[in-house]
Amino acid sequence: MITSGPTRQYLDPVRYLTNASSGRMGAALAGAALALGHDVVMISGPVSVDYPDGVELINVLTTQEMLQAAGEAFQDCDGAIGAAAPCDYMPRHVSTQKLSKTGEPLQLELIETPDVIATLGQSKRQDQWVVGFALETDDRRFRATVKLERKHCDLMVSNGPEAINSSENQVELLDPSGDVIEHIRGTKEHVAQRLLHQIHHRLLTS
Amino acid sequence: MITSGPTRQYLDPVRYLTNASSGRMGAALAGAALALGHDVVMISGPVSVDYPDGVELINVLTTQEMLQAAGEAFQDCDGAIGAAAPCDYMPRHVSTQKLSKTGEPLQLELIETPDVIATLGQSKRQDQWVVGFALETDDRRFRATVKLERKHCDLMVSNGPEAINSSENQVELLDPSGDVIEHIRGTKEHVAQRLLHQIHHRLLTS
Repeated sequence: MITSGPTRQYLDPVRYLTNASSGRMGAALAGAALALGHDVVMISGPVSVDYPDGVELINVLTTQEMLQAAGEAFQDCDGAIGAAAPCDYMPRHVSTQKLSKTGEPLQLELIETPDVIATLGQSKRQDQWVVGFALETDDRRFRATVKLERKHCDLMVSNGPEAINSSENQVELLDPSGDVIEHIRGTKEHVAQRLLHQIHHRLLTS
Repeated sequence: MITSGPTRQYLDPVRYLTNASSGRMGAALAGAALALGHDVVMISGPVSVDYPDGVELINVLTTQEMLQAAGEAFQDCDGAIGAAAPCDYMPRHVSTQKLSKTGEPLQLELIETPDVIATLGQSKRQDQWVVGFALETDDRRFRATVKLERKHCDLMVSNGPEAINSSENQVELLDPSGDVIEHIRGTKEHVAQRLLHQIHHRLLTS
C-alpha cells in the first residue's frame, strides 16, 4: 500500500489548508513496485499526476479520510509506504458558510490531525512493515530519526521541501537505529527504484 | 486582462491556505475573448488547466504577486475580468522553518490580503472597465451587489461554491444598480460566451 499526495483541511466551504505535494513520488513508487510484480493499493489525496495503470486507486480528500481508507486497506497488505503529505493541522471549528471578510484579523485555532503512518505503525502485525517519509527544513536527520521511532517505522526516508512538486529528489534512508543506509539522489523514478530495492532486501526477505 | 485560478498564502515553507479554483472559468473566458479577436493577458495562480494558445500568460503564486502583476498589466488593457479566486486571508506571521507539531493547538492569526479586483476597480481610468466574480454560499445576490459597489465593478458575476473545479456553472450577471441582467447556466464555455457577449454589448460599445 502506498499513500500519496496532499490532503486538505477546510476552514469553510471554500478555503482550506494544504501543501503542494504532487503525488509524483507516490506514482514513481507505484511504478517501481508494479515492475517488481507487487499488487499496489494507492490511497491518494487530490493530485493531477497520473498514477500507473494497474494500481488500485482510492481517492480521498481529508487526512481523516486517508487514515480510514489506509487503515482498512492495510489489513490485506504486506506493508505500507507513506509517501503522502497529509495536512497535519485542521481548524478546530469548520464554518458551514463561507466566512465573510470583516476588515478584522481572523483568529484560527488549528489542532493536529491524526497521524496516518504513526497509526499504521502502531497497529501493524509482526509480518507487516511500514516505511515513512519525513520532510523537514531543519535538523533533518535528527527529526527523521525521532519520527521513525515515534511512528514505529521500519525504514524512514528523510527529504527536504525542495522535493515538493519536483521531478527530482535527494533523500537519506534511515534504519531503526538511526543509521543512514543509503543516500539516494536523482529522478523520483530512480529514488523509487532504490527504495524498493532496499525494501525488498531488508523487509521482504527477512 | 483576465485573472484566473487560486493563489496561495504560506504559513511556513510547506503549508499554505488556498482554495480549489481550477482556472477553468478563466480558460473559458480567454477562449471566448480570443474568438472575438481580443488580445488576452492572463494572470494566473497555480493551476493544472491548459490555457488556450495565444494568451499572454503571467504565472503568480500569492495574492500580492497577482495584485502586482495585474496592476501592471491593466495599464495597457481595455478592461479586466476577475475570474481568479485569490486567497483573501494570509498569516500575519510566516515561519521560515517548517512548524513542528507539538501536540498543542496552533493559534494562527490571519489578516486580509489586498483585494485585487477592488484595487483595479478603484484605479481604473474612465475608458476602462472591470468585471468581478462573487462566490458566496449565502445571501448571494445581496452580497454580490455589495461587492459590486465596494469594488467599483461595471458588472458582477454571482455564483456559488458548486462552480469550483466544475466543468459547469450557473451564474447571475448583475449591473451596477444591482439588477439581474441575465441568468446563465451551462458549461463554463457557454457561460464565458454569454459573459463576453454582455461585455461587448454593455462595456465595449458604449
